[in-house]
Amino acid sequence: MADSEAIQNPTAEQQPAAAEGAPEAPKVPSKNELKKRAKEEEKARKAAEKAARQAELEAQKAAAEVDYAKEFYGTLPLNQSQSRPRRERVQIASLNPNMDGQTVLLRARVQTSRAQGSKMVFLNLRQRTDSVQALLTVAPEKVSKQMAKWAAGLQIESIVLAEGVVKKAPEFIKSATVGDVELHLTKLHLISGLETILPFTVDDANRPEPAETEAEDVQFKRVLLDTRLNNRVVDLRTQTNQAVFRLQHAIGHLFREYLDGKGFTEIHSPKLQGAATESGASVFQVSYFKGKAFLAQSPQLAKQMAIAADFERVYEIGPVFRAEDSNTHRHMTEFIGLDLEMAIEEHYHEVMELLDGLFLHMFRSLKEKYSKEIETVRKQFPADEFKWREGPEGTLKLSFKEAVDLLVEDGVPREDLDDIDTTNEKRLGRIVRAKYDTDYFIIDKFPMALRPFYTMPDPEDPTLSNSYDFFMRGEEILSGAQRIHDAKLLAEQMRGKGIDPASMSSYLDAFKLGCPPHGGGGIGLERVLMLFLKLNNIRRASLFPRDPKRLEP
Amino acid sequence: MADSEAIQNPTAEQQPAAAEGAPEAPKVPSKNELKKRAKEEEKARKAAEKAARQAELEAQKAAAEVDYAKEFYGTLPLNQSQSRPRRERVQIASLNPNMDGQTVLLRARVQTSRAQGSKMVFLNLRQRTDSVQALLTVAPEKVSKQMAKWAAGLQIESIVLAEGVVKKAPEFIKSATVGDVELHLTKLHLISGLETILPFTVDDANRPEPAETEAEDVQFKRVLLDTRLNNRVVDLRTQTNQAVFRLQHAIGHLFREYLDGKGFTEIHSPKLQGAATESGASVFQVSYFKGKAFLAQSPQLAKQMAIAADFERVYEIGPVFRAEDSNTHRHMTEFIGLDLEMAIEEHYHEVMELLDGLFLHMFRSLKEKYSKEIETVRKQFPADEFKWREGPEGTLKLSFKEAVDLLVEDGVPREDLDDIDTTNEKRLGRIVRAKYDTDYFIIDKFPMALRPFYTMPDPEDPTLSNSYDFFMRGEEILSGAQRIHDAKLLAEQMRGKGIDPASMSSYLDAFKLGCPPHGGGGIGLERVLMLFLKLNNIRRASLFPRDPKRLEP
Repeated sequence: MADSEAIQNPTAEQQPAAAEGAPEAPKVPSKNELKKRAKEEEKARKAAEKAARQAELEAQKAAAEVDYAKEFYGTLPLNQSQSRPRRERVQIASLNPNMDGQTVLLRARVQTSRAQGSKMVFLNLRQRTDSVQALLTVAPEKVSKQMAKWAAGLQIESIVLAEGVVKKAPEFIKSATVGDVELHLTKLHLISGLETILPFTVDDANRPEPAETEAEDVQFKRVLLDTRLNNRVVDLRTQTNQAVFRLQHAIGHLFREYLDGKGFTEIHSPKLQGAATESGASVFQVSYFKGKAFLAQSPQLAKQMAIAADFERVYEIGPVFRAEDSNTHRHMTEFIGLDLEMAIEEHYHEVMELLDGLFLHMFRSLKEKYSKEIETVRKQFPADEFKWREGPEGTLKLSFKEAVDLLVEDGVPREDLDDIDTTNEKRLGRIVRAKYDTDYFIIDKFPMALRPFYTMPDPEDPTLSNSYDFFMRGEEILSGAQRIHDAKLLAEQMRGKGIDPASMSSYLDAFKLGCPPHGGGGIGLERVLMLFLKLNNIRRASLFPRDPKRLEP
Repeated sequence: MADSEAIQNPTAEQQPAAAEGAPEAPKVPSKNELKKRAKEEEKARKAAEKAARQAELEAQKAAAEVDYAKEFYGTLPLNQSQSRPRRERVQIASLNPNMDGQTVLLRARVQTSRAQGSKMVFLNLRQRTDSVQALLTVAPEKVSKQMAKWAAGLQIESIVLAEGVVKKAPEFIKSATVGDVELHLTKLHLISGLETILPFTVDDANRPEPAETEAEDVQFKRVLLDTRLNNRVVDLRTQTNQAVFRLQHAIGHLFREYLDGKGFTEIHSPKLQGAATESGASVFQVSYFKGKAFLAQSPQLAKQMAIAADFERVYEIGPVFRAEDSNTHRHMTEFIGLDLEMAIEEHYHEVMELLDGLFLHMFRSLKEKYSKEIETVRKQFPADEFKWREGPEGTLKLSFKEAVDLLVEDGVPREDLDDIDTTNEKRLGRIVRAKYDTDYFIIDKFPMALRPFYTMPDPEDPTLSNSYDFFMRGEEILSGAQRIHDAKLLAEQMRGKGIDPASMSSYLDAFKLGCPPHGGGGIGLERVLMLFLKLNNIRRASLFPRDPKRLEP
């Protein structure tokens, strides 16, 4: 509109003003002078007539350019809930060829905008993982040139309110997810524009990642991870990320669904602790009024106390905090723990088997109900489909000793295997995948020396423990065990690991008041998500990740 | 056993020793002497015979007291998962008269134990909210006196493994929740005993509370709240608390169920923040490696950023932290926020109405599906049933102005009502209950001055805002509003409230990149639970509550 106002049109009113601009003539004219004047007057009259004709033409032209579409486009006033017409708005995902001819209204982002000549504009409109092609064509009384120009000038990522007629697409439109229809726009208004330059386009951020290289931080990516995370709000708009976080939601939902069906109670335990729990080294300290507090490293103590308080079976989904200065692809200072704890009747394998049932429920349901989201992510992060064992033989369960033997067979020196480090974990994952055709397995019976003080020792070999880890694609995603429910043995084990029992008295007291045998485990939500989808970096599985170097956004 | 050992029985061996005690007779005996001897010998022989007979009787009696029930009772070795017989164990709640004659095995707490004479012991066995009477009767080859004595000596709150035969109760047993059967015990073993003195009994802790008095801290309670909280693990075992935390689980479940059905995505936002958000005064500070971080006061900023990132509708259930030195019945330093945020199409009443639908879903489902738990709690905390309006007129919605008018009509000076304080909130609750017969209502259109900087002003009256609070029994349980989605207006409002926009740049940036109009709200989980059940103190609705003076257990 600024452009059209800039056109300089001489108007009818300007011309007479110019004619009146000759008042300085002498008072008594000669005959020649009179002739000259008559000639000049004739000339002026003709010029005025010409100007009038031209003005009329211009006026006609201007009339032709009056923007008859003014009401159909433009910036809406800021929505402060001025009115509520209750007009239905549709989702792009619901559009289909059966709606051919229907007028619909929708709110969407402008993903792309491209003018074809001055009379046609193609827009790609996006809602989350769905997009549709919209088309604006200049037509008398409907779409003006000005409207087309305005639409072509919309910044990408603007939010618009679009009204249009659904039309069957003449051929499938590959650039849209809903490709069998297009939208012939009749109205287009801006709801929210941009007040800054986009750090990168959502299209760029959604491009397939190059194949994983051995070196972890080699980046062939079009948008670097750090740039993405610095501008996470735009990064999260990619179809990939919209799908990743639908899947994160799904994992939490499936976790609860399975456990609710098994009689578990959801608990919420405090993150503010009076003492540094489990291990003092990696706990964040908080200023608490005139004293101090510590952030819980896990709900371990609280969930065991809930068992001593007769809750029988509990789970918790909540943040856990680790003050470890680890800058790796799989560590964050804050992540979401999916924790559970349950009383056992006879044997800790009751818990281990329940946890296995939980993972199988998650894997099966993700594959069945979320294949669209998994496919969407795979376009950007190509990965072999996640594999697990179905059928009567069940999930592969190795003892720690068997796992070590597999690694030794594969060439790892036995003396390096007091513990299995990250590199050997991944190697074991590859061996298992090759030998047993599974990305998911369990290692049972870890050496006591590798486990925390509250782990129940094996009844026959006190160097072993009743504990297990679960693995996905060669990385640990769950750690669990039978716990010591006897206060005397617990205090003894604390002292054995250099912990003063008096420093954890309210925890210890819980077991002095009678506690059933119990066990449990803790799962890292983001790890499961990362490994199921092979996102290669845990930060991609967290909405706003936190690590030793990142507290924003 | 100590008692039976104390009985002094002369034995056969003791009698001959006594007979051998007369060696001082003269060497050459007279006839009389011989006669006398013969007599004495005869006497001794008879005495010996008598003693032998008596010894035989005693031996028979002793044989009868050999503990033939030794295998049927006693302390089990510490469960380290030594074996897995896979024997079915039952729940007390499942016992019923149709099982008459069946032998069952179960793990339970000893709630009470009472001997009747030396041949019968009554035990009350408890699992969570359920209990049953068990009976141990001395019977040859089955239950020995020793076994009965051992059972009578079990400390209450011990955990036992009990085997018994289900019998129809001759009459309903009022002291048990499952009163139509009793369990005739055949075996009884100790799984976990106590190593300390119980601070109070679960029976005492479960007694009805006296009626609420006006003065908040007058305590007629049998077990004081502080004593309970100091020994929370025992306190949580009461049937009341088992029910309270099943209901806490239910509220979270119903919240998610409703929102999942409305297309919401669950998110997990970081609790560690780079800057003190919303208001610097009441934020906890954390030592973060060489710098510092702050604990999130709410997921407000993150959930709005998720809307700017196209998530459309999000919710979060997680801890929120408030460094307020408030020591009242309704403040904690850490509690669980049920938060949601959604894009709106036309008007913020879309959110307000969705939130209303959410509460109605929760109230209705609690009443329908959790009446047993609500009844259990009411036995200890008597309360009028929570009331809300059903039917076509719907939930009562007052404007802030109308709420003030109601209070003025009731006698509160208008000049005191720039804000409605806690006392007037409760008064308003009573007025509304009397006038509209509801414990649940909404106040809309709060003055702008009372709301945070991100609240959208009313389109006509800039002193008012598009914001609302929800109330239960005269206390606020939800606060929400339409938010400002325009970066310029947001920065302006920040400055108006004395906040430097630069200090919240990553939040502000989210709106510069285009954001749809949106609104939401935050609910305090423990407040809803406390007010629905009328628990009178928020600490009772939190598993391990945290306040300025309490970080343990």
